[in-house]
Amino acid sequence: MEEKTIEREVIYEGKIFNVEKHVVSLPNGGTSVRELVYHNGAVAVLVVDEDDRIVLVEQYRKAFESMSLEIPAGKLEVGEEPLASAKRELEEETGYTAETLEKIFSFYGAPGFCSERVDVYVAHGLTAGTMNLDEDEFLQVQRFTFDEAVDLLASGRITDAKTIMAIQWWQLSKLK
Amino acid sequence: MEEKTIEREVIYEGKIFNVEKHVVSLPNGGTSVRELVYHNGAVAVLVVDEDDRIVLVEQYRKAFESMSLEIPAGKLEVGEEPLASAKRELEEETGYTAETLEKIFSFYGAPGFCSERVDVYVAHGLTAGTMNLDEDEFLQVQRFTFDEAVDLLASGRITDAKTIMAIQWWQLSKLK
Repeated sequence: MEEKTIEREVIYEGKIFNVEKHVVSLPNGGTSVRELVYHNGAVAVLVVDEDDRIVLVEQYRKAFESMSLEIPAGKLEVGEEPLASAKRELEEETGYTAETLEKIFSFYGAPGFCSERVDVYVAHGLTAGTMNLDEDEFLQVQRFTFDEAVDLLASGRITDAKTIMAIQWWQLSKLK
Repeated sequence: MEEKTIEREVIYEGKIFNVEKHVVSLPNGGTSVRELVYHNGAVAVLVVDEDDRIVLVEQYRKAFESMSLEIPAGKLEVGEEPLASAKRELEEETGYTAETLEKIFSFYGAPGFCSERVDVYVAHGLTAGTMNLDEDEFLQVQRFTFDEAVDLLASGRITDAKTIMAIQWWQLSKLK
C-alpha cells in the first residue's frame, strides 16, 4: 500500500512548516500527486488543578479568525524532545511546573496532508508559578470545573481537536 | 485580541489547500507573521454496524509514511454541504447508506496554522451496499468490536484525531 515518491518539488520553506508536492506511485501501478505540509510536531498538556478545574488558554486563531479555548500547547523546537517541550510550554503558558507528565495520546490532526504529530500529556503534581509568554503570544488562562468543561464540549464552544480529546479522556478517567 | 491582516502574500494555490503568509497586527500594537494553510474543510462519520462493530478504513498516509486506521472521511467538494458530503463519503468508502447522520463534533485539527474544519457525524439506520472509491484512493474496510476499538486506542495504534475522538465518544455513549 506504500506510496513511493517519484518526483519531489519543494514549494515553500517557512518558519512553522514546509510545503512539498510529490508525485507518488500507487498500488495499481498508476501515479498521483500528494500536496504535503511538513511540520516539526507539537505537544499539549491536560492540566487539572488542585480544585479539580481544567486549565485552558484562550487565544486568537488567525487560520479561522476566531478565539479558541485550548489545553496548553506549543510546537517542538528543532531537536527538542517532546517531554521537555511539554514541560516548557506548560510553564510558559500557565506558570505551572509538574512533577510528572504522563503521555496519554499521540495524534495526527490532518493526516491527509500534514505530518504534524501532537503528543498529549496529563500533568501530575502541580506547583504554581509565573507565566512567561513568547512576545507574539497573547493568551488568557481560564479555569473550568468538570461540569463546565463537559458543557463547553456539548455546546460546541470547544472546537480544538486536542482539547476535545483531553476533555473526553478526563470524562472517561472519572467513569473508570 | 483579533489579529488584523496588514499584508497578505499568496504562496501556493493547490488542489487540496492554499498557503498564505500574513503580516498581522498584535494586541500590543506590534506586528507578527502568520503562515497559514487554507483548506475547504472535511467530514467524517462514526459507523457502528448491526453487530456493534466500528467500521474503520485503513489507508496509507503519505504525510507520515505510514498506514492509518480511521473512521470514513473525506474533504468537502467546492460548494458542497457538509451533511451531503458525509453521506457521499460514507457510501463511497464503505458502501453504507444511513437513514440519518447526527453531528457530534466540529473540530480544527491544527488550529495554529490550518483552517480545515472537520464535521464528525454518527450514522443511524444503516443499509449495506457497494463501495465506490476515487481512482487514487486505496483503502481497506475493517470492523472492530467495542473492546477491540478501546484496545486500539489504548495501545496507541490509532493516531488519527477524528478517530480517537469518535471512539472516545462511543465509549462515553455506552457509559451514559
